Amino acid sequence: MTIEEEVKEYFKNSKPTHDFSHVKRVYNLCMKIGKKEKADLEVLRLASLLHDIGRIKGDEDHEIHSIEIAEKVMDKYKIDEKTKRNVIHCIKTHRYRNNAVPETLEAKILYDADKLDAIGAIGICRAYSFGGENGQKLYRKEDFSNKDIEVSRKLDHKKHTPVIEYKAKLSRIKDTVLTEEGKRIAEERNKFMKNFFLRLEKEIKGEL
Amino acid sequence: MTIEEEVKEYFKNSKPTHDFSHVKRVYNLCMKIGKKEKADLEVLRLASLLHDIGRIKGDEDHEIHSIEIAEKVMDKYKIDEKTKRNVIHCIKTHRYRNNAVPETLEAKILYDADKLDAIGAIGICRAYSFGGENGQKLYRKEDFSNKDIEVSRKLDHKKHTPVIEYKAKLSRIKDTVLTEEGKRIAEERNKFMKNFFLRLEKEIKGEL
Repeated sequence: MTIEEEVKEYFKNSKPTHDFSHVKRVYNLCMKIGKKEKADLEVLRLASLLHDIGRIKGDEDHEIHSIEIAEKVMDKYKIDEKTKRNVIHCIKTHRYRNNAVPETLEAKILYDADKLDAIGAIGICRAYSFGGENGQKLYRKEDFSNKDIEVSRKLDHKKHTPVIEYKAKLSRIKDTVLTEEGKRIAEERNKFMKNFFLRLEKEIKGEL
Repeated sequence: MTIEEEVKEYFKNSKPTHDFSHVKRVYNLCMKIGKKEKADLEVLRLASLLHDIGRIKGDEDHEIHSIEIAEKVMDKYKIDEKTKRNVIHCIKTHRYRNNAVPETLEAKILYDADKLDAIGAIGICRAYSFGGENGQKLYRKEDFSNKDIEVSRKLDHKKHTPVIEYKAKLSRIKDTVLTEEGKRIAEERNKFMKNFFLRLEKEIKGEL
C-alpha cells in the first residue's frame, strides 16, 4: 500500500467539507506552488497528505494528533530524519495558531494551500455544504449590507450563513497567505468569489 | 397581516433550500418576467407567494396541498373569482407533471420562475446546501468526465453529488422554460453555472 492509499483509509468516514478530497486538493496546490517556489516536493507531498490525518480524533487541536499519527506512518515507510523533521514542522504550523509560526518554505506553502482551499469556487461549495450540514439559511437579506459583520459572526451558530462566512472570513484570506505564488492564486480566487457573491445578490433581488 | 406575512409563517420551519427565501426569489422573478411579458401581476403575486405553501405537509404532491391552503387564504383576503381561478391553475401546473400543463401566460411564468431559481449562482448555493444536508460528497472525480451520468443519478442517494445534479438536471433546465424572457434569463444563468463547474474542475486539479 502507498502512503496515499493508507491516508485515504483514515478519511473514509469524514464529512464532505474535510474529507480526502480536501487532502488531495491541498496536495495539488502544494505541488503547484512548490514547483514555482522551488521547494522540497517530497516534504510537501508527505506534509499535505498527513496534515489533517489527526481529524480522526476530532477537529480541535487536530494538528497535535496529526503529528502523532504522521510520525508512525513515516517510520513505517522509512522516511529519513531530516525530511521527517521538516514534515512535522509543516503539520505543526499549518494552522498558524498558538504561536506555531510556519518558518520553512514548505511550511509556508502548506499553510497557503490549506487556506486557498477555502476560497474560489471550491470555497463556495465547501461553505454551502457546511451550511447545509448545519441547518444554516442560504443567506439573510441583511448579510449583504451588514457593516457590523464581525458582531453577527458571534451570534449563535444557527444564525450564521455562508454569506457572513464569506464577508467576515473568506474574503480576508488573501491578505494572510505567505508565498508569492500563494498570493497570486489567492488574489485570483478572491476575485472570482467576490463576483460570485455580487452576482448572487443580484439574482436574489431578481435583477439577473 | 398581509398575505405575504401570513405565507411567511407557514415557512418558519422549512429547510434552507425551500424556505421563504425561495418564495421571495420566485416572486421577484415572476415580477421581472411578468412585466416584460405583460402578464397579470396580481395573479403572479398571489401564485408565487402561495405555490409552495403545501410543502408544510411534505414535498410529494405538494401542489395539491398548496391549492387547498391557497383557496382558504384567498377567501380570507376576498380575492375575486377570476383571479382565484387563474392563481389555482398556476399552482396546479407549476411543476408541469402528471399532465398538468401550464396553459395561461401567468402559469408559464410561474413555472419558469420556479425552475430559474434552481440555476445560476443561487442554483449552485442550493445544490451544495442540499448536498451538505444529505451527506453528499462535494464531487467525485469521475463526475466531471462521466458520459453515463443518467445511470449514476439512479445510484443511491448517498452517491449523488451536486456535480451530477448539475450535469444530469440543472444544465438542461434552459431547454424546458416556456417564455421568451424566461429563456433569456435561463441562457444567461446557465452560462454562469457552466463556467462555475468548469472552473471548479480546474481548481480541483490544482490548475487555478
